[in-house]
Amino acid sequence: MTKVAIAGASGYSGEELVRLLLRHPEAEIVAVTSRQYAGKTLAEVFPKFAHYRAAQTIPFILPDAAELAKLAEYVFLALPHGVAAELAVPLLKAGRRVLDLSADFRLRSAAVYEEFYGKTHPAPELLAQAVYGQPETYREKLKGAGLVACAGCYPTSILVPTLPLLRSGLIRPEGIIADSLSGVTGAGRKADLGYIYCECNESARPYGLPKHRHLSEIEQELSIAAGTKVTMQFTPHLIPLNRGILTTLYLTPSEEIRDAESAERFSQKLADMYQKVYGQEAFVRIDGDKILPDIKNIVMSNVVEFGWKVDCRTGRLIVISAIDNLMRGASGQAIQCFNLMAGYPETTGLL
Amino acid sequence: MTKVAIAGASGYSGEELVRLLLRHPEAEIVAVTSRQYAGKTLAEVFPKFAHYRAAQTIPFILPDAAELAKLAEYVFLALPHGVAAELAVPLLKAGRRVLDLSADFRLRSAAVYEEFYGKTHPAPELLAQAVYGQPETYREKLKGAGLVACAGCYPTSILVPTLPLLRSGLIRPEGIIADSLSGVTGAGRKADLGYIYCECNESARPYGLPKHRHLSEIEQELSIAAGTKVTMQFTPHLIPLNRGILTTLYLTPSEEIRDAESAERFSQKLADMYQKVYGQEAFVRIDGDKILPDIKNIVMSNVVEFGWKVDCRTGRLIVISAIDNLMRGASGQAIQCFNLMAGYPETTGLL
Amino acid sequence: MTKVAIAGASGYSGEELVRLLLRHPEAEIVAVTSRQYAGKTLAEVFPKFAHYRAAQTIPFILPDAAELAKLAEYVFLALPHGVAAELAVPLLKAGRRVLDLSADFRLRSAAVYEEFYGKTHPAPELLAQAVYGQPETYREKLKGAGLVACAGCYPTSILVPTLPLLRSGLIRPEGIIADSLSGVTGAGRKADLGYIYCECNESARPYGLPKHRHLSEIEQELSIAAGTKVTMQFTPHLIPLNRGILTTLYLTPSEEIRDAESAERFSQKLADMYQKVYGQEAFVRIDGDKILPDIKNIVMSNVVEFGWKVDCRTGRLIVISAIDNLMRGASGQAIQCFNLMAGYPETTGLL
Amino acid sequence: MTKVAIAGASGYSGEELVRLLLRHPEAEIVAVTSRQYAGKTLAEVFPKFAHYRAAQTIPFILPDAAELAKLAEYVFLALPHGVAAELAVPLLKAGRRVLDLSADFRLRSAAVYEEFYGKTHPAPELLAQAVYGQPETYREKLKGAGLVACAGCYPTSILVPTLPLLRSGLIRPEGIIADSLSGVTGAGRKADLGYIYCECNESARPYGLPKHRHLSEIEQELSIAAGTKVTMQFTPHLIPLNRGILTTLYLTPSEEIRDAESAERFSQKLADMYQKVYGQEAFVRIDGDKILPDIKNIVMSNVVEFGWKVDCRTGRLIVISAIDNLMRGASGQAIQCFNLMAGYPETTGLL
Repeated sequence: MTKVAIAGASGYSGEELVRLLLRHPEAEIVAVTSRQYAGKTLAEVFPKFAHYRAAQTIPFILPDAAELAKLAEYVFLALPHGVAAELAVPLLKAGRRVLDLSADFRLRSAAVYEEFYGKTHPAPELLAQAVYGQPETYREKLKGAGLVACAGCYPTSILVPTLPLLRSGLIRPEGIIADSLSGVTGAGRKADLGYIYCECNESARPYGLPKHRHLSEIEQELSIAAGTKVTMQFTPHLIPLNRGILTTLYLTPSEEIRDAESAERFSQKLADMYQKVYGQEAFVRIDGDKILPDIKNIVMSNVVEFGWKVDCRTGRLIVISAIDNLMRGASGQAIQCFNLMAGYPETTGLL
Repeated sequence: MTKVAIAGASGYSGEELVRLLLRHPEAEIVAVTSRQYAGKTLAEVFPKFAHYRAAQTIPFILPDAAELAKLAEYVFLALPHGVAAELAVPLLKAGRRVLDLSADFRLRSAAVYEEFYGKTHPAPELLAQAVYGQPETYREKLKGAGLVACAGCYPTSILVPTLPLLRSGLIRPEGIIADSLSGVTGAGRKADLGYIYCECNESARPYGLPKHRHLSEIEQELSIAAGTKVTMQFTPHLIPLNRGILTTLYLTPSEEIRDAESAERFSQKLADMYQKVYGQEAFVRIDGDKILPDIKNIVMSNVVEFGWKVDCRTGRLIVISAIDNLMRGASGQAIQCFNLMAGYPETTGLL
Repeated sequence: MTKVAIAGASGYSGEELVRLLLRHPEAEIVAVTSRQYAGKTLAEVFPKFAHYRAAQTIPFILPDAAELAKLAEYVFLALPHGVAAELAVPLLKAGRRVLDLSADFRLRSAAVYEEFYGKTHPAPELLAQAVYGQPETYREKLKGAGLVACAGCYPTSILVPTLPLLRSGLIRPEGIIADSLSGVTGAGRKADLGYIYCECNESARPYGLPKHRHLSEIEQELSIAAGTKVTMQFTPHLIPLNRGILTTLYLTPSEEIRDAESAERFSQKLADMYQKVYGQEAFVRIDGDKILPDIKNIVMSNVVEFGWKVDCRTGRLIVISAIDNLMRGASGQAIQCFNLMAGYPETTGLL
Repeated sequence: MTKVAIAGASGYSGEELVRLLLRHPEAEIVAVTSRQYAGKTLAEVFPKFAHYRAAQTIPFILPDAAELAKLAEYVFLALPHGVAAELAVPLLKAGRRVLDLSADFRLRSAAVYEEFYGKTHPAPELLAQAVYGQPETYREKLKGAGLVACAGCYPTSILVPTLPLLRSGLIRPEGIIADSLSGVTGAGRKADLGYIYCECNESARPYGLPKHRHLSEIEQELSIAAGTKVTMQFTPHLIPLNRGILTTLYLTPSEEIRDAESAERFSQKLADMYQKVYGQEAFVRIDGDKILPDIKNIVMSNVVEFGWKVDCRTGRLIVISAIDNLMRGASGQAIQCFNLMAGYPETTGLL
């Protein structure tokens, strides 16, 4: 059993980490942190977990790096950006392995961080050693990583289907558009008038455009895959459901799609390429061009699913992906990374 | 055109008053108050009303009684209890007619107010002159009223079907149970963690039992109708929808229900009695014992609908009612009262 | 009072027409049709309308053109495509004015109808005389129209903001993308496993791509405005709410957007142009580039609202619009057309 | 690994059995049945399970008892009542152990079955040997059972908190009322107009009163516990969420509750009794009289949670319970029974 701690366990991502790690056969939660709940047990704060025997004794403690380093080998940080780095630095110094779910270590450039997050990076010296926590892309690096910057939710829904398209040269790097829909857990557990029930129910609205923060990590990874700087369009929307992200990607094939036949041929190339890249992946479902994703088919699952249509009228490729924002978009993917780091089978605790 | 003002127009009841009064052919909104929005127009604060020409000029002002008295003949108070009375007193002194949607003037006894609301009544001298704003029950008194204490949402859903049963002696006053379900607008527009989307969606929960504040006015009115002190059981629940209250009442017939035949006879007596009492009412729908209410059939409407079943196995009468909590449970009923006070046909602006 | 009838009053659009026409001060519903409910009154079939005195006597009759022609001056057809034309032909012969909410008369070309709807057009001789029921675009023609082909829901959300952009030359006609979200009433009132509650709730999914039927009328109208053939991309999604469409449009400005300053200048040009085109419209709300639309702000309203962002990073224009699919996307807009045809103020019964 | 089959795997309970058994470390699904899908694999029919390797090969077969008996040791029947018995009879003859999720074997009396289900019982000779599948109540009998009649969803929510109250004599057996709210999966996966999204969303409605079928098994079990015939009131309501049942029970304490002090004493007696009965249960959460249940706290969990209030004003005891209707109300509890039958720890595959 590997000893793990979760810093920031009262938000939605933290709670999801607790849910998954309580069931994880190789992990033992030794502590969870929360300024508000310090002194209570996990079962007291989250009655929903009270039927796990361990929850009766796992203590909420203050977010103290020294204490966390003493108790745990691995520490998950489910904290706001900026705050996460404050704990990450001493934990790494103490030799602990850190999985950060915030944006603090996702960018390779402190300047880009400053551009998108509006403040100086708190620990730029660590950026070079952080590994981006997207297992299908960085599996080998993750195995030895000390600091994992778990990929964001929207980025995961965009990168998993798009990176291989760019790497293989099947699409052009210009003109990429991602139109995303997100459930409301994406906004976090916070008392804000815009997120109370009656302001979200029977509502749908765009937000954060045209320069949402997640663009920084999406464009970074797309640029690496394309071998050239990629600038893209991203429009997130809030829709009335708890969990899930559905992303519709508008892409330009590298070859001309003139008619139904060339569309069909191009679609088959995609199918072959995706099968080669993801065919053996436990948590990637390739829907092909007949089935399209639906959020309800991936809720509470760590799977990224995606399908596509090649449009012979417009010459475009439409790719649609779906993930559970708390699972594949946050805590599930973090545990997938943890499994890689700790040497467990990648699906441990995630099926 | 009668000049009206709305104090507290940024909450859900206030906004619903605005919506209804903008469409009311005999009312002119001359001012709305809000500490937060003073200085702006209605259209600026609520873009959703911007296509009403009047909304372009109606100003948000501070909640100042002298100013309101100068501008309006009628003032609707959509304010928290306690705060409402502070405005009501000077407005009444200035000769204005007041429709208070808070609980401040619903109880005839200042002592009961203190018991249920936990503070000394701010203006006990006005309790005797306030008329309880339930038009089917107090129609005549409302016509001449200076101060109307608009009935609460749960109370309306309970009193409309129950009062005639008690008055007619068809049920016994003991053992009454009301089990109610409410949409989340009932909790008001406030940033509170318990009411954010993901804490209410895919959730249902009881609250406020066993002594919810609304019991005070419900028991007061039931006692008047029964001619004896009534103590009853009331359990409200929050369910995931925006608007609507569904109340299931468990009642004891005054006569013994022994079999299907006596149940049928009793049900017919109810139908006859309700037809006599409510048959001509514009906003009461008697569903009888074949159809049962559904919240979706009264949403955005001022109608109270109710149906019933007489259970020959248990001898009980089950009555089920439905209202829109913002319409019949608050702002719609307030305008019904206003129409009575101002001498307009009761349905004006409500169809 | 103008006598009107509604053919197909048991679906969602038909029911919405009933709701609006019961409140319309200049219209009298003389009959509604339904094969299933013939012989009953409106109040019996829809208890929710029972508090309208008229609903007690309005009869459901069989969809017989001769009978409808005898009773009504105007007939609204809320029927499936194909079925609508069967009634429209004899009604027009009998001199009645027809407002068809189906797709039967929206296209100028019978060949395009056949391409998109998969059958020979039932009455191609009428296509030339039909007026497309989008009041802001065809107001003058609608006044004298005998046959109005009310615009579709998605098309309305796309055309209202886009047509003036093409007409003014502010955007290029190539590469237009519309990504739309629709509530479930858009799928109609039909018992289909894909639309039962638990298959839609906590779900979001694309459908009908890449060649949804509405593309035919959208491209027809865009092409007219652009003066050149427009082929565009359209991706509808189903999201879990009852009413509303939110459309995100990805458009290419005719001038180059190089930086924040040129973006700002272009945005101002848009604001000026829209103000000129729609500034006096009762049912168009121009949000500008600061506010973005939200479905909850137009639910139960006939307003189209739209806002935009000019993205200086990508050079694109993003326009976002919102409508209530049953109001502005169907029945409300139909009544707006009716008001024009019958010579009533355009907002009659719609505020 | 124990070989299991699921007959009727395309409904919600069947799908939930699949979900749970795919994760069950001691069970191997060898076949699932469906007339509609016979010939396909589980992964083809339910893409959501495709990332389970086993799902790629598990075949859908026709519901043939001989074939099922050949393949599996245990067969779960997730079929409509009446149909379930047809498979159960030959399976039992062939020596297989059967877990029936329908109502076919829940009642000890064929006459009561006929009264409530409107048809002659298909296999009355098996009623005596069936064990009611409520593990906390019939644990020992379940271990050796050949035929388990898994308890219904509403019954489970009512019986778990109520049976010990009757057995201990703390409440009187007369006058019991259960008012229940259910999510829409409770209505099954069927294309019925009453259950399409827009007829359930923003809606809440009672149904099936006053004599819902589940009353038969509830009263049977309450009567056994009370040692006297119990007749009770039960009112189910449909509310807009996918999963979950919340039940509010109105009960009469055996002793008089005169004041706050006697209420407090009685509450303590309850707490002690419940602790003794359920304190060691893995899937029962006793909330006490401070916390009240919320559906969101038991969704996707096999836990029954309940809390209570003793009302010194009315002298009544209010108990409120919550379960996930597909987990504790159907498939989770069935697997809990299976674990007992097969000799596995009771929580296997359910945490």
